Amino acid sequence: MTEILNNLFAIILAGGSGTRFWPLSRETCPKQMLQIVGEDTLIRQSIKRINGFVPPENIWIVTTEGKAQDMQFHLEPLGSLARSIQFIIEPLGKNTAPAIGLAAIYLSHHSPDSLMIVMPSDHAIPDTEKFLRDLKLAIEGAKRDYLVTFGIKPNRSETGYGYIKVVNGSEMAPKGFLKVERFVEKPDLETAKTYLSEGNYFWNSGIFVWKTSKILYEIETHLPDLYKKLKEMESLLFVSGQPNKFIPCNAKPITLGPHKPNKPNKPDRLYELYSSLEPVSIDYGVMERSSNVLMVPASFQWSDLGSWTALDEVIEKDNSGNILKGNTIDIGSQNSIVFAGKRLVATIGLKDMVVVDTPDATLVTPKEKVQDIRRIVETLKQNGREEYLLHKTVERPWGSYTVLEKGEGYKIKRVALKPGAKLSLQLHRRRSEHWVVVSGIAKVTKEDETYLMQTNESTYIPINIKHRLENPGEGPLQIIEVQNGDYLEEDDIERFDDVYGRS
Amino acid sequence: MTEILNNLFAIILAGGSGTRFWPLSRETCPKQMLQIVGEDTLIRQSIKRINGFVPPENIWIVTTEGKAQDMQFHLEPLGSLARSIQFIIEPLGKNTAPAIGLAAIYLSHHSPDSLMIVMPSDHAIPDTEKFLRDLKLAIEGAKRDYLVTFGIKPNRSETGYGYIKVVNGSEMAPKGFLKVERFVEKPDLETAKTYLSEGNYFWNSGIFVWKTSKILYEIETHLPDLYKKLKEMESLLFVSGQPNKFIPCNAKPITLGPHKPNKPNKPDRLYELYSSLEPVSIDYGVMERSSNVLMVPASFQWSDLGSWTALDEVIEKDNSGNILKGNTIDIGSQNSIVFAGKRLVATIGLKDMVVVDTPDATLVTPKEKVQDIRRIVETLKQNGREEYLLHKTVERPWGSYTVLEKGEGYKIKRVALKPGAKLSLQLHRRRSEHWVVVSGIAKVTKEDETYLMQTNESTYIPINIKHRLENPGEGPLQIIEVQNGDYLEEDDIERFDDVYGRS
Repeated sequence: MTEILNNLFAIILAGGSGTRFWPLSRETCPKQMLQIVGEDTLIRQSIKRINGFVPPENIWIVTTEGKAQDMQFHLEPLGSLARSIQFIIEPLGKNTAPAIGLAAIYLSHHSPDSLMIVMPSDHAIPDTEKFLRDLKLAIEGAKRDYLVTFGIKPNRSETGYGYIKVVNGSEMAPKGFLKVERFVEKPDLETAKTYLSEGNYFWNSGIFVWKTSKILYEIETHLPDLYKKLKEMESLLFVSGQPNKFIPCNAKPITLGPHKPNKPNKPDRLYELYSSLEPVSIDYGVMERSSNVLMVPASFQWSDLGSWTALDEVIEKDNSGNILKGNTIDIGSQNSIVFAGKRLVATIGLKDMVVVDTPDATLVTPKEKVQDIRRIVETLKQNGREEYLLHKTVERPWGSYTVLEKGEGYKIKRVALKPGAKLSLQLHRRRSEHWVVVSGIAKVTKEDETYLMQTNESTYIPINIKHRLENPGEGPLQIIEVQNGDYLEEDDIERFDDVYGRS
Repeated sequence: MTEILNNLFAIILAGGSGTRFWPLSRETCPKQMLQIVGEDTLIRQSIKRINGFVPPENIWIVTTEGKAQDMQFHLEPLGSLARSIQFIIEPLGKNTAPAIGLAAIYLSHHSPDSLMIVMPSDHAIPDTEKFLRDLKLAIEGAKRDYLVTFGIKPNRSETGYGYIKVVNGSEMAPKGFLKVERFVEKPDLETAKTYLSEGNYFWNSGIFVWKTSKILYEIETHLPDLYKKLKEMESLLFVSGQPNKFIPCNAKPITLGPHKPNKPNKPDRLYELYSSLEPVSIDYGVMERSSNVLMVPASFQWSDLGSWTALDEVIEKDNSGNILKGNTIDIGSQNSIVFAGKRLVATIGLKDMVVVDTPDATLVTPKEKVQDIRRIVETLKQNGREEYLLHKTVERPWGSYTVLEKGEGYKIKRVALKPGAKLSLQLHRRRSEHWVVVSGIAKVTKEDETYLMQTNESTYIPINIKHRLENPGEGPLQIIEVQNGDYLEEDDIERFDDVYGRS
């Protein structure tokens, strides 16, 4: 199977903002970066699931530039695997058809004879073995020029998923497959009940397998405007006939795809083109219209984790139907979800409620109103509130920092550095900093001076003094930083040297 | 009226633990110390309400020793008024009849001809003028040897209050008063509806006026066991015929009343006696049984603030019937109470819910379950959890401290000192401390050395070194303290000198 493997690519779609899992998800920490079910975050689980089935360098993630940066740091715990993964950058999110089309264009230059496995980054699939077994079957279909999708046998009248209707009588399809009649949108409850009883409706998992050449052909047929614009992007991105070389995913931001605006010439045109694309899903843009679609009835369990209430399907509940996580005390609640962290959340007699607590924001809503969470997030965004954007703990390539308190003229942070990590050589124009080491060993550079600090030692960094903090140890380093000044935002930083390529 | 004034005493009952307002109330911060309605905390409002009507030194607070200490610091913003207030210490809480009896015993020595105004410390009475006008009338009744109580005209079928039934036909009572037929316990809803329609039922406000000699006589008549034990306590506390001198309420803990156990001789017997008292209310122990009771139909608004839901009666609601306080965002909630602080609380579509957020604990409950809050508090207490006992910010005579974070081997506090305040000269056996001044000026003593520190300066206090922090400035001082050590609890402190009398 080796020759197949090298032509087999996993295209992981990771552009989602995960608004619906606020306050646990944030703009800079979307749902795919959360560990809400299983032993790791959703995107790391997605990568581990497919790793080995395809070579690490054939795992490509499609997302926007800002998310790609955050995701690179986020994937670091995967070690060398993370460093093999490629990123394809969308200038902005435009639903799945443009994202898949863009990936196919890159792939057609890189490996014209390739097969693409397209999968979301933020779904739950607990059984990898069954998933890979089904995938092998799907690949056989894709090799025979089919667009192959995976349908999940419904076990309830779910109104939150799209459905795939298959043709009765599977003799029309190759062994193991079902022939797709049509894709249908999220139904109302009555319709969902009918679908469940009729037995020939499956949930649409959003996982696909096909030849790169085949999906481009189908896009050309069914979405000609998208195809035309993809070809124009291609002509801007690639010297004809010369496959582009990929920059591996390491700490440096990736600049493979079309760029953000305000960059000279070509990128502007790329951004313009991509902006003008119709945000259509691959399901309705292509799958619904094509006559070459097969469905694998999935043997694996699956959830798209579309909202907090989806946890009811994937996390074991207590005898009263509750999911209680973290520091909680409950008296007599029923069918409720309480997600707490270190802070105490006490609940009494809740029914069908969702309570989510994070260090800087708490959400309380009945389950039936979870779709309105996006309105909360929109309001926060409009008001320029940090609670939509950042968590109190912010991940960085070198570790993380947590804002413990802001007051007039001061700000207190806990800064955690991974072993070997090195902040940039930097200075601040408007604040000084006191550092106290509370665990590990710190190496401090202050202008021309360099010294080591042990736990329980402190140092002072005056305004306008070039400085750098490193962790030369083998364990983690934690310092408490007390900032004093009249302006204490993150953008008061001049970087002179940065091992992570930031400026 | 001067001669009356000097014989008129306000006895403020402040023993309540305020469990029902958790998590805003804590063991060390009971309901009376909360600002939940009006411009100040409930007890400070209670004191200001009566101040001037009686001389400051005639305001006596009855509470337990632990609460009295916290309360003294809490009353400091009242300035000289606070320093005039007297405390009577109960060894433990035993309901209102013993507390009032104890106060009457003290008062019978201090001012045998006195009149007592007995009032709770944690009720809401927005209109002081009307209250004082009614009080003047009540005093006239008390001078004529009546036990006078205040009844509130009901405006709803409230099941949370006790009621006073008055005799129809007020010609039997002196002008302005109504004759009391009986006191009745909290009714069920049907009964409450009847009371409301019948018109001769009033809410029992728990505010009373009587002669000290008269209430002692009535206790002797109706609660002879209590009376006997009070007389025995009196013989232990007072040299016969010699009025005891009172220690004014300043920073030193008060030791006027019976003491806690494990103190030599007399206090042990006092504690034993007080412990053996039946915990009966004055309403049922005396008022219900006496034939000398008059009621003033109150012209003032009143609420006992018995639970979170009582806020609905005293705080203005928005158009959807919600009370939203602090950092909240709401979409479409109805008839709900959301109490937030600085952290964001986002709510969607709540109906008849209560959400209370504090820095270390959040409560979510339907209004109809607020009586179960005490079960949460009991659980926390049984499990030795701090969330029942302390807030993250703890008031001290010199200011306050806030625990910003605890981690392995370190703890971070913000310490705020009032102008002129002085911590004790102290040392720690198991922790060192780094101090960074973030506002104000600090005076630091380290063994024999003394120096001043400005904002943005830091110092280090090693283990086993005697040290002291003072605020010599005219504005507040704030420092950030980073503690390092293997044991970081409050009890690792040896005090050598303390201006607040602590050891």
